[in-house]
Amino acid sequence: MPRRIRNAQLSTLALDPASHTPLHQQLFLGLRQAILDGRLKPNTQLASSRSLATELNISRNTVLTAYDQLTAEGYLESRIGSGSYVSSHLPDDLLERKSIGHAEQVPKRDVYLSKMAAPYKDIPLKQTYRGLPFSPGLPALEEFPFEDWARLLARNWRAPKREFLVDNSIGGSAVLREAIATHLGQTRAVRCDPDQVIVLSGSQQAIHLVVRAFAEPGDSIWMEEPGYPGIRDAIISAGASPVPVPVDDEGFRLDLAQSLAPDARLVCISPSHQYPLGQTMSLARRLDLLEWAKTEGKFILEDDYDSEYRYAGRPLSSLQGLDEDNRVLYVGTMSKVMFSGLRVGYMVVPKDLVDVFLALRRDIDSHSPAVPEAALADFISEGYLAAHIRRMRLLYEDRQDCLVTLLKQKLPDLIEVEPQESGMHLVAFLDPLIPDKRVEKAAIEQGMLVRALSGFYNGATHQNGLILGFAGTSETVMPQLVDRLDIIIRTLTK
Amino acid sequence: MPRRIRNAQLSTLALDPASHTPLHQQLFLGLRQAILDGRLKPNTQLASSRSLATELNISRNTVLTAYDQLTAEGYLESRIGSGSYVSSHLPDDLLERKSIGHAEQVPKRDVYLSKMAAPYKDIPLKQTYRGLPFSPGLPALEEFPFEDWARLLARNWRAPKREFLVDNSIGGSAVLREAIATHLGQTRAVRCDPDQVIVLSGSQQAIHLVVRAFAEPGDSIWMEEPGYPGIRDAIISAGASPVPVPVDDEGFRLDLAQSLAPDARLVCISPSHQYPLGQTMSLARRLDLLEWAKTEGKFILEDDYDSEYRYAGRPLSSLQGLDEDNRVLYVGTMSKVMFSGLRVGYMVVPKDLVDVFLALRRDIDSHSPAVPEAALADFISEGYLAAHIRRMRLLYEDRQDCLVTLLKQKLPDLIEVEPQESGMHLVAFLDPLIPDKRVEKAAIEQGMLVRALSGFYNGATHQNGLILGFAGTSETVMPQLVDRLDIIIRTLTK
Repeated sequence: MPRRIRNAQLSTLALDPASHTPLHQQLFLGLRQAILDGRLKPNTQLASSRSLATELNISRNTVLTAYDQLTAEGYLESRIGSGSYVSSHLPDDLLERKSIGHAEQVPKRDVYLSKMAAPYKDIPLKQTYRGLPFSPGLPALEEFPFEDWARLLARNWRAPKREFLVDNSIGGSAVLREAIATHLGQTRAVRCDPDQVIVLSGSQQAIHLVVRAFAEPGDSIWMEEPGYPGIRDAIISAGASPVPVPVDDEGFRLDLAQSLAPDARLVCISPSHQYPLGQTMSLARRLDLLEWAKTEGKFILEDDYDSEYRYAGRPLSSLQGLDEDNRVLYVGTMSKVMFSGLRVGYMVVPKDLVDVFLALRRDIDSHSPAVPEAALADFISEGYLAAHIRRMRLLYEDRQDCLVTLLKQKLPDLIEVEPQESGMHLVAFLDPLIPDKRVEKAAIEQGMLVRALSGFYNGATHQNGLILGFAGTSETVMPQLVDRLDIIIRTLTK
Repeated sequence: MPRRIRNAQLSTLALDPASHTPLHQQLFLGLRQAILDGRLKPNTQLASSRSLATELNISRNTVLTAYDQLTAEGYLESRIGSGSYVSSHLPDDLLERKSIGHAEQVPKRDVYLSKMAAPYKDIPLKQTYRGLPFSPGLPALEEFPFEDWARLLARNWRAPKREFLVDNSIGGSAVLREAIATHLGQTRAVRCDPDQVIVLSGSQQAIHLVVRAFAEPGDSIWMEEPGYPGIRDAIISAGASPVPVPVDDEGFRLDLAQSLAPDARLVCISPSHQYPLGQTMSLARRLDLLEWAKTEGKFILEDDYDSEYRYAGRPLSSLQGLDEDNRVLYVGTMSKVMFSGLRVGYMVVPKDLVDVFLALRRDIDSHSPAVPEAALADFISEGYLAAHIRRMRLLYEDRQDCLVTLLKQKLPDLIEVEPQESGMHLVAFLDPLIPDKRVEKAAIEQGMLVRALSGFYNGATHQNGLILGFAGTSETVMPQLVDRLDIIIRTLTK
């Protein structure tokens, strides 16, 4: 004989009218919990919806909705003429399970993960500090024309083209690819048709795709020493081996590269503005590297991350524009000329590799949203971007001058620094006895991100220094920040 | 004795004042081209800036700018007191190169690609037709409140928080993770804290990450037969083997799965609404599968792609909410309740795997843009999403009724169709003798996407049918579309 549900059982149904969870859902979850932990046993007859509603002071519809859902999911069964019963067919293991409430901590356990994923288990993610003063790639966020940008976006969202809402092209919307191709042709002498431009969610994605396209696990890939850690990370995460190749005043040393790893599958360089040291790769070296790629059938990743800001002379042309054998994968980003939170980067690839890269990109995230791309195309083609870059070039030049002057005034005995001809950061060389990584660590505690130069080396180095981004740091706060840096360094050299 | 530049040489410098490319850049490219193809030889003295400016009828500054850039890049050298000369140090191979103009077609060539990339070479990308009527996941785009959405976006963009412009969390901004966790808790009985939610650029990215996290190349992964092709694609692109496991009225058959591939690393299922057939996985089967995962230490990908729309009964709860051993990776998307061009999907993962998935995601594209995420969080928490879903549920119910009625009226002898209790598409079963893939092909030519059911099977099947999305197709056009479909099918059965 089934038992009637008792008021005592209902008292555990703590319904909260103020909660965002609807009452019927609270009731559903409460009753399900009572069934799962055995307080309501199989064949128990539930109170009628009317009496339970009265009991709980809620509407009868609320109770009916909860009962319906419990029935639909198999926890209750209706018997004609006599109401709802806890299902007699509930599997035993369902009834033995412990309380299902909020998410719980997972007990320590072994999880079988793929070789790719396993290294990430139990290693906490590194914290990033890219918004702090002196962060190398940080632009002057407060100077960005957000009103204009918000207006262009709203204009494009208010009446979006139907095709922008469904299937954007994997490589980005045609208007943006066209705008980027024109922009790159005019400012970087990149030679490409719009369909060679692939818009991505950042330059890191481009690096990821290029590395995966050309390298098997175990393959060697040349990178600059010192060089961009994002390149090293991408190579390692693909299971390939980064081969650090020293740079000198003319840039990447192909001769050393060939002796270090003659069979490298790919080379990753920043020829216009070496990262982080800042020199420009000489024409002779560029031609040698292009010749190597042509002869060996290899490819070159050109990371052109911040060439838009040049304070002395004209921006140098891209390596891509010199390449007559379609060996260059050109990578650029909107993170420096706009801001990294936009999440737009792009690559320009040889025509015969476009479909390969589109297919690889589709595998990892289909495509980017088309409407913001249309707004970005407007931002570029209506001249907002060029105007913003012109304004920022003047501002960043002033900021660099200010920072160099302050450093020379206050730390002439500790730091060797000269203004850079281009970019958004400068390199302050330190005495080899000053531990730059300890400076970096102490500076973060003081609210600044001054990256240790030695951290950009794969191997051990005596080349100590600090990478100081000047673009995102206003002149009004620079004096006190340099004072703090002064104290940090003097404390560490004592 | 160097030769003076001659007017004849300049005549090839076709400067176009109407072009978007600045004149100095046109002059730079023209002169560089003349040097590269040998019309201007090493040691040739160039015309003075003044005379060239007069000759070309442009400002002297324009000429100086172009000369400066050519000098900076090593094509020219200045000799004090006698002007600019074509560099005497240009490498021979530079001078032998052919014309550098616009992007050219790449001659057919062998390119060494990784094993992952090589299969994509020379296979053109499949065209997609997801915007066409009857496309399965297509929502009613014209009904979306774009005015509200544009306003929320503009509001968030006009004065964005600084941290939204630099480093968004890899898993998405806190406000959106919180909004999604609450939404899933209320509507799907998903149990999670906001930090278990990882916001991605679509559910396909979630599937990609889960497959990569658990499977090595060669590993077996169970999927439903018939099942979602996006799952099959993700498994194959990871080099793993999809093992199709038949579904019946109660959903995925664990017993068959265990005999087909007892060592499968992962199972991918759609328990709430099997894709594409539409049945709900029974409670008993759910518990068996959870027990299997617990006993074997394996994981379950739950693809909960369109549970928001239910026309009969209440939405069924998620498998994730029943899982007491943290074995479920829950995957959802905004593509169905908003539109796929938004590019927002998400996954909910056990606490001890959050960092692994964040690290894997960072490798492929760092993170999503934070400001649109904040606008989306507003869209959810201010009730716009729930209101839109409510409106669409009524609209889609009507659309389904209309389509079912039309199909039953016009093709009663050819098609067997019943309304679905939930979702955005229905299944019209065809006689096994009617070739559904040929219907699909002919329908595309007539501007409709009716997917062949047999195309969702990995293996051969006699189960012919058509998957008809009703959500994105208005009742006013349905009669003529069904007429066209009628003619297509009758023509093919003759």
